[in-house]
Order: sequence, then C-alpha cells, then structure tokens
Amino acid sequence: MNINRIGESTIALPNRPRLVASACIVGKKEGEGPLHADFDDIIEDDLFGEETWEKAEARFHYTAADTCLKKAGLTAEALDAVLGGDLLNQIIASSMAARELHAPYLGLYGACSTMSESISVAGMLVDGGYMRHALCTAGSHFCSAERQYRFPLEYGNQRPPTAQWTVTGAGSVLLTSDENLPAICRVTHLTPGRIVDLGITDANNMGAAMAPAAADTLCRHFQDMGSSPADYDLIISGDLGRVGHDVLLSLMQERGMPLDPAKYIDCGLEIFLPEQDVHAGGSGCGCSAVVLAGHIMRRIKDGELKRVLFMATGALLSTTSSQQGGTIPGIAHAVVLEAD
Amino acid sequence: MNINRIGESTIALPNRPRLVASACIVGKKEGEGPLHADFDDIIEDDLFGEETWEKAEARFHYTAADTCLKKAGLTAEALDAVLGGDLLNQIIASSMAARELHAPYLGLYGACSTMSESISVAGMLVDGGYMRHALCTAGSHFCSAERQYRFPLEYGNQRPPTAQWTVTGAGSVLLTSDENLPAICRVTHLTPGRIVDLGITDANNMGAAMAPAAADTLCRHFQDMGSSPADYDLIISGDLGRVGHDVLLSLMQERGMPLDPAKYIDCGLEIFLPEQDVHAGGSGCGCSAVVLAGHIMRRIKDGELKRVLFMATGALLSTTSSQQGGTIPGIAHAVVLEAD
Repeated sequence: MNINRIGESTIALPNRPRLVASACIVGKKEGEGPLHADFDDIIEDDLFGEETWEKAEARFHYTAADTCLKKAGLTAEALDAVLGGDLLNQIIASSMAARELHAPYLGLYGACSTMSESISVAGMLVDGGYMRHALCTAGSHFCSAERQYRFPLEYGNQRPPTAQWTVTGAGSVLLTSDENLPAICRVTHLTPGRIVDLGITDANNMGAAMAPAAADTLCRHFQDMGSSPADYDLIISGDLGRVGHDVLLSLMQERGMPLDPAKYIDCGLEIFLPEQDVHAGGSGCGCSAVVLAGHIMRRIKDGELKRVLFMATGALLSTTSSQQGGTIPGIAHAVVLEAD
Repeated sequence: MNINRIGESTIALPNRPRLVASACIVGKKEGEGPLHADFDDIIEDDLFGEETWEKAEARFHYTAADTCLKKAGLTAEALDAVLGGDLLNQIIASSMAARELHAPYLGLYGACSTMSESISVAGMLVDGGYMRHALCTAGSHFCSAERQYRFPLEYGNQRPPTAQWTVTGAGSVLLTSDENLPAICRVTHLTPGRIVDLGITDANNMGAAMAPAAADTLCRHFQDMGSSPADYDLIISGDLGRVGHDVLLSLMQERGMPLDPAKYIDCGLEIFLPEQDVHAGGSGCGCSAVVLAGHIMRRIKDGELKRVLFMATGALLSTTSSQQGGTIPGIAHAVVLEAD
C-alpha cells in the first residue's frame, strides 16, 4: 500500500482537500482587539443568552459551525463528520454543539492544538475519500476556563506576567472533496505532533512549556519537506504568547533554522493589543481557531498569503496533574495551507 | 474523488487494514472475573507502583501499549501515531502514556466509546496509506474515576442498582498496512456515531442514556450494509451494562431488527460476575478496550468468531454538565472486524 509520506513523519495529501468556508464568533474583549474586522460576529454578552458559561461556550461553538455551514451553502445533514474539541472537562462544549448539529461526531482533544489536530485528521479523511464534507471546530471561553482551571472569577486573583488570557470564541472550517465548491485554500501536507516535555511545572507559563514541542514539529517538518522557513509566506503558531514566541525564536535559531520575525506570528499575540491587559497574550483552543478562521482566511482570500504553515500548540495538563506536581507535556500539529 | 461510502454513513476500508497485535492489562477485581485467562497481565496493586491513581492509570495505559508493541515485534519508534483517550479530565492518562512512547499523538475523546472511535480513525488513516503503524488505545481506573466523577472512595457512598463499576485496565490494538505482519483480523467497515440524547439526566444510569445511540448506529449500519444481525457471529456493545443491554434489545425489536441474544454480548456484562457486586456491570473506556483486546481477539484467533461488529458506547457528560441539569448525550461508533 502506498504510504503518503514525506521524510520521517510528514504526510502529503495528494488530492489537496478543499477548505471552502470558515467562520469565527468571538466575545466582547476579542471584538475590541486589532482583528475585530475579521470576525463573523462579536457577542457582547459573555453568557450568549444562556444560563451558564459552559452552555455559552457550546453556543459559540455551535454558532461558528452553523455560520460556516451557511457560508458553504450546506446544511448539517450533508456533513459526514464534525471533528472538534475544547478545554472543558470531557469536551462538553463540542459535544453539546455536535448534539445540535446531529451529524456523526469524532471528539478530539489536543488542548489548544485541537484546531490543527482537527484539520490534520479531517484532511486525511477527506483526502482518502472516506468523507466528503468534514467540519473542523474548536473553541474556548475565558470564564469557563478560569472557573475550571484557576479560580472563580469573583475571587479576583492576581495573574503573573507570564499568564495568558483564554480567548472567548470558536472557529470552524469546512473541508471537502466536492469540486463544485470554490476553495479558499487547500490542505496539502501535515506533520503530526509528538509530546515534548522539558519539565516545566508552572501552569501560568504555558508558552514556555509548549515552545519546545513547536520547535520539534517545525524542525521535523522542514527536514521532511526539504523546505526552510523562507518557503512559507507566513508561519503561524497557536498560542505561545509573548514568552513562548520568544522561546521558539531562540530554539529555531539554535537549531539552525531561524524564523524570520517578519514572517512568523503567534495567534496569542495577534488577537489582543498589549493595552488590553492580557499579560503574555491570548490562549485557549479558540485562540488559534478564530485567528485562522477569520484573519488568516481573509488574508489568503485577499491574495496576500499563498502558502502558510499553521501550527496550533497545546499544553496537555489538567488541574489534577498540576496538583500532583506533574510537568506539562506540550504538543504541536502543523498543517500546510495553500491558496487555490 | 472516490468516496469509500456504503449507504448513508457507513465507510468501507478497501485495503482491509490489519489488526496484528493486541494487549490488555487489568486490575485485581477484573482478574477475579470470568475473563481472567484472556488478560495479558493482572496487576494486584491499584497504584501499580505509582504515587497516585491517575499516574497508575497512565501506567496501565503505557503497559498495554508497550505489551502490544512487543507482541507485534515493533518498538515505539516505528509508530506513525498513537490514537488514544480516557475518562480523566484532559485525557491525561493517555497523554502521559504517549509522552513515554514519544510517538506522534492524536488525542481522542468519546468517553467509553473511545476504543471504537480510535479503531475507526486509525482504520481510515492506515487504509488510506497516511500511516503504516497506528496504535489504538483506551483505558480507565475505578479509583480515579470515582474520585473525579462521584465521591472520594473513603466516603463509602451508596450505589444505586443501575450504577456501573468503572473497569481498571487499558487495552491496545495495533493496526498496520505492513503485509509482513500476520493479521489476527482486518478492519473492513465502520459506522461513525451520531449523538443521540433522549433526555436522561441520571449519571447513575448511563446504560439507558447510551442505548438509544447504540440502536441508532446499529440500525444505520445494517441499513447501509444491507445486512442484518444474523450476518455477524457476534455483536459486541461497549458498556451498556444490564439496563442498557436490555433497553437495546427492546429498541432493536421495536425497529424491526431484533438482535439474537445468543449472538449479542455487552462488555460490561462479560467482564464481571454478578456476585462481584458491580450492580449493573462494568463501564469505563477500559471496559470495552480490554474485552476486545483480550477475550474477543482470543476467540477470533481460536477460529470461533469470523466476523464481529464491535461498537463501544459513550456517555458524553461531565460533572459540570450534570450539576447544571444537562441531559446525557450518548454516542456509539461501530467497526466490523473480520478474521484473516
């Protein structure tokens, strides 16, 4: 059987699955940030009309998915699968959204790497002809994440400068093999992430915990492809934030594959302005999902970007593993997107 | 592009990926049950030499994966991906195991349906030539599940008769396209699950919550395949337990596709004896994973079973969704395994 492999661990998608629609729905604070014009909708109400933040998170998730489907001119009945995940315990926001869509559902968990894990898996399933239409989705909510991972919001805890701000929002993209649907871009290659853990235990410094995994994936990707950072119009990391962004630049310099700071961005740094008081930047599954689905897709449509490497990054910790003194495993999945 | 589709939602794997090895490691109570001879190892110590139940759960997970690899004559370096999940928040048991394996890792979450979700996704990735060797894994631990979902064990809470007992153990199977490795069986078809939620809110009655999703998947599978329950030597549900098992029999009867009780088993009823005081039976991601990897694989190797339908079932709830009065969404993914 032919192995669609390039090098040690990069996978080629010979049929170049089409990414035909994207949508992103964000909260008020994200709507006040520099990317406000790229979002499909900005919801002023943290609760999105629901009774709880967790149900609101599911509402963001569902609305992004539904908007994406509408933009593609499809209904949920046409979907062969929804592939999604989030940060809530047992990924209930995704599950609740998938329940409303009533399509086959593959739950994923890669922490904040979920959006690129989803595009990776869906890319292969569509490329191989196992699915025609697959919806990739990821999201997060500041309030539900604070409650679950840190403190009740009412407590007003102090945040260290290395801490990041969980993005409220969800992003969806639709992959398809249907040649009648015009593509925004194609998914052409992917490099699945390995877990890298250099022993960071500070859950308020996840950028530093994730950067080594990002460097591992990037180096394997460039080696496998015989490419260099210069071969991409833009390299996009998920939510390393200020600390992780700088660590990644250093690591890539050390490994002899320096990133050009003018052609490398981190979604966690793009989504908020420094004066929005988010410390080291944005984070959460929703961070890279909404920046990709909104800002990056707009720049590809505008002809500004022809070939990008999108690599969401995840910190695979839980409050229990942190309380037990566990170190933070990092992971990063990379996908190549090329304008059609 | 060719769609490998049969009917509305069943997927054919034309290259028939090989399942070449399996392994299962269980706890003391599981080792005292009727399937004791089918497990690779029975660990008397609940902590498996670790400091915490969560780390012990990861140890079960890793040991099952490592044993499976050894049986296939491979090392972790050969793996293109580990696809796994568990019930712990942020699936940390799987992540910790994958960290030790140091292979590319795709985290999945389908609650107790994770083992068949994993075989479904890995089956397509291997069939399509995107991966050569993919390890599917799932597990659970009674003590960590009780602590996370219910009460501290020390509290000694009362369990209603509909409650199930989370299996301590993990199971792994290796799928490959390598023709040099002798197959135990092949993965030939799969029907991904949709979420079905009939409004059950009692987290101590998950069998009833999952049975409608199991019926939905079974009916779609038989319709798509043009097959009937009689076309399988055995139909295996994940962990519906006594209540869900009986509900599923009724639902299939109502829908005109009655299951033959002699050719239908539920892993939750197989793994324990009634006198082991497990109420409605076993449950947990590990339940269907260890029964499949041990008991079912042995019966296929013995020539007793030629064609089985394995359908793990999941209840997509969390303690938060339960506390907020949410109903329990169920899901069931089905895969067809045929003796080589």
